[in-house]
Amino acid sequence: MSEISIIAVGGTIDKVYFDAKSEYEVGPPNIERVLSELNLSISYSVNSLMRKDSLDLTEQDRALIAATVANDPCDKILITHGTDTMVETAKALGQISSKTIVLTGALEPALFKTSDAVFNIGCALGAVQSLSAGVYIAMNGKVFAAGKVWKNLKKNRFEPID
Amino acid sequence: MSEISIIAVGGTIDKVYFDAKSEYEVGPPNIERVLSELNLSISYSVNSLMRKDSLDLTEQDRALIAATVANDPCDKILITHGTDTMVETAKALGQISSKTIVLTGALEPALFKTSDAVFNIGCALGAVQSLSAGVYIAMNGKVFAAGKVWKNLKKNRFEPID
Amino acid sequence: MSEISIIAVGGTIDKVYFDAKSEYEVGPPNIERVLSELNLSISYSVNSLMRKDSLDLTEQDRALIAATVANDPCDKILITHGTDTMVETAKALGQISSKTIVLTGALEPALFKTSDAVFNIGCALGAVQSLSAGVYIAMNGKVFAAGKVWKNLKKNRFEPID
Amino acid sequence: MSEISIIAVGGTIDKVYFDAKSEYEVGPPNIERVLSELNLSISYSVNSLMRKDSLDLTEQDRALIAATVANDPCDKILITHGTDTMVETAKALGQISSKTIVLTGALEPALFKTSDAVFNIGCALGAVQSLSAGVYIAMNGKVFAAGKVWKNLKKNRFEPID
Repeated sequence: MSEISIIAVGGTIDKVYFDAKSEYEVGPPNIERVLSELNLSISYSVNSLMRKDSLDLTEQDRALIAATVANDPCDKILITHGTDTMVETAKALGQISSKTIVLTGALEPALFKTSDAVFNIGCALGAVQSLSAGVYIAMNGKVFAAGKVWKNLKKNRFEPID
Repeated sequence: MSEISIIAVGGTIDKVYFDAKSEYEVGPPNIERVLSELNLSISYSVNSLMRKDSLDLTEQDRALIAATVANDPCDKILITHGTDTMVETAKALGQISSKTIVLTGALEPALFKTSDAVFNIGCALGAVQSLSAGVYIAMNGKVFAAGKVWKNLKKNRFEPID
Repeated sequence: MSEISIIAVGGTIDKVYFDAKSEYEVGPPNIERVLSELNLSISYSVNSLMRKDSLDLTEQDRALIAATVANDPCDKILITHGTDTMVETAKALGQISSKTIVLTGALEPALFKTSDAVFNIGCALGAVQSLSAGVYIAMNGKVFAAGKVWKNLKKNRFEPID
Repeated sequence: MSEISIIAVGGTIDKVYFDAKSEYEVGPPNIERVLSELNLSISYSVNSLMRKDSLDLTEQDRALIAATVANDPCDKILITHGTDTMVETAKALGQISSKTIVLTGALEPALFKTSDAVFNIGCALGAVQSLSAGVYIAMNGKVFAAGKVWKNLKKNRFEPID
């Protein structure tokens, strides 16, 4: 069994560009490529569960994510997720009390020169190994407990709820 | 007071290239530049304590690092350090029991396209916020307790001591 | 007067990402940023004439581009342009016989890690200084005379007409 | 036969980092890797003739470079070369009057995030296809005739001789 189970559900981090339409689509999990290019001393698996913009995630999608996490034999779960509803999915996972679950993503696609993806993946990986059971979000360099964080759209970053 | 106190002592992560000599020297802390380019939700300070290749660190240098950490009002300390003697400095800091101390660095200079610096900084930042008091090394995607890790020179990575 | 006059009319090279819409828009000329980061020994000016996807360029737009080139006091003209109709604009400029005109662009936005933008800009800059009067396209590492080149959509590259 | 013959003789563009010594060595030709990652419409061959810091090039080395160029069946030659004596090698090639020869290199190793290597390679490739027979240097965005250029060490760039 891997030390860490990674579940990818889509979002900006995985967006790829299709020239014909001048639009983005959600592609395969970039976390897999990023981690494979590093020389890691930790074992992990990557499950590409869905490829959705997080604004398109439904109740059923969240139920599927929760069931997938609950049934995972691993107790350290890292989820890459779109940023717009990451806070809601974190809340929906709150019933699972026996695992350490860290959600992360990116504010710019991983294929951009200035993307925050690699940094965020590192931050989430450091957090998921270090935290006790619970649900957390690792974004903008901070590890937040679920329920204590919101996405400030104006500043385009995750911030603590006072 | 900042949430996290960062102390830079040099190492490969900060190496810069001088054309005339075709040699590297240790420059200013790259962690400062990396973090400033991200839109972080966490406060931190950076102290450039020394700029040394870690093979050149002396007992006095390690005593100075330990004293600096001990006297720091912050209880979350992130140290960027050369990789060759990171394990030894981690051990030397073992007397400080009231703080969470995470050491990291890079196997390739941060200015290289393929450097592990940004990922490692993210990983250390995620870990230092999440761990209880103690001394740790965050390298190669894994958070190690001090004393449970060595640098495998042949594979050029940090690995657990079985 | 600058040695080279650069006219930007838009295209993929200048596309920027807007998260809210998951869409691209054409932003300010990336050639200006790219060249400013290099330590160049050549003088140039950049005129952001329009910001259009090249599929949206009209006859009027092409007439404006041609008039702008014809009236430019400089005899070395570099145009950054979308790739889908670059071949047509090159033909439309064919009446201007007294200047060296090189069109270039990019198959991936300049802000992508894997973009061809910097290479293509270099190639066009090398060509425009070296060619006699005429209209040319510099794409995919090759300098083509206008009228001797087409965009192979399937292979996503510019190729010679045999 | 390829359209362009590329000869690599070393220099900063090909420098690689060896951690043990904290020193650079000249590695295999980076131009080969750079060009292979682009989707080019032009045929070329790469000959790794020598791997030297250009300060270490001897009269014999320059004679070998000149003989290699003279014997090459291709009449468009691109040479990647260290910057410190590029001007001298360009002069030494001045006897060859039947070929277009363009020298380029980089002021920072190609593996650096901020390297000028990709831009310079593009510039040299654009120039070598466009120029009539002669010896040229393409550096800092400018195409210089051999003998009309010097390296301004203070400004770290190639400039015209007035």
